[in-house]
Amino acid sequence: MNFIELAKHRQSVRKYTDQPVEKEKLEKCLEAARLAPSASNSQPWHFIVVDEPELKNKVAHHTYEPLISFNKFVPQAPLLVVIVLEKPKVITQIGDMIKKKKYPVIDMGVVAEHFCLQAAELGLGTCMLGWFNQKPIQKLLNIPEKKEIGLIITLGYPPEDYKLRKKIRKEMNEIVTYNTYK
Amino acid sequence: MNFIELAKHRQSVRKYTDQPVEKEKLEKCLEAARLAPSASNSQPWHFIVVDEPELKNKVAHHTYEPLISFNKFVPQAPLLVVIVLEKPKVITQIGDMIKKKKYPVIDMGVVAEHFCLQAAELGLGTCMLGWFNQKPIQKLLNIPEKKEIGLIITLGYPPEDYKLRKKIRKEMNEIVTYNTYK
Repeated sequence: MNFIELAKHRQSVRKYTDQPVEKEKLEKCLEAARLAPSASNSQPWHFIVVDEPELKNKVAHHTYEPLISFNKFVPQAPLLVVIVLEKPKVITQIGDMIKKKKYPVIDMGVVAEHFCLQAAELGLGTCMLGWFNQKPIQKLLNIPEKKEIGLIITLGYPPEDYKLRKKIRKEMNEIVTYNTYK
Repeated sequence: MNFIELAKHRQSVRKYTDQPVEKEKLEKCLEAARLAPSASNSQPWHFIVVDEPELKNKVAHHTYEPLISFNKFVPQAPLLVVIVLEKPKVITQIGDMIKKKKYPVIDMGVVAEHFCLQAAELGLGTCMLGWFNQKPIQKLLNIPEKKEIGLIITLGYPPEDYKLRKKIRKEMNEIVTYNTYK
């Protein structure tokens, strides 16, 4: 699969079977993430794999809003990966301050997508969740209060009849210009 | 090339030849970026390809600090891609506020890495630059003052003898735990 094919193949999967994720496949996704680039190579991330079923369901519970049926598929996923933001190198922290940037937040997008692209190549489904209740999840997973949870990724096998959707994206000429913004 | 190989192959390239980037290859990198996922599929990005040599050199000038020799390779790159952050969908803006997240900043990491991975597959070199002087670049490229430049990516061919470096990364057990943070 070349990269464009892989990018078309990766999609947010919101339905999962009970099939557990093989340890080697999970480790390959984590390895792909480990290799991701980051500002000044700070690697400002920590991954908590949540695969103990009861605990996983408790964490999942804090990612959905039952009243609006948002993210209610999450408990189906046999496994969650919680990404905690870690402090970057001092040089990056200084850059953050001077340039008013959030380099570790950019880095987190990069690292999470490495994980998801690798999962897609292995036939696994993922969905990045940016909506969750941080405090109760921190308690459940013993994450220090001052640390921030960046994203949570669901991981598992979609049902066999789960369709690959056509990507709905802006046209190239809506998002690209040459040598000037407009 | 499978994904792990591609991830090992992508590296920050800080030396470029004069060889121009073929239009089809640039467009393939942009297409890979266009296909990237984003929170609520907002696609909150705009790419300015800067390939007019004089303008490109002026923009490059604002990405390096001559006194500390930081980023001084940038003018060598035949082409720069400036990523401007656009407003996401209203639902994402509300989520940003409620959950105190910066979804478009996460999205930008994802989209920039799609671009760089595709470039690596095509034998091109890239480097993501998060350090630059925003205001003068906004003026040069007619970017409205209220818009934020997220990242700038260099694109071009590295010299033939440019080595693929071994990735220096934290060990797996330093960045991954199971079911608890510590």
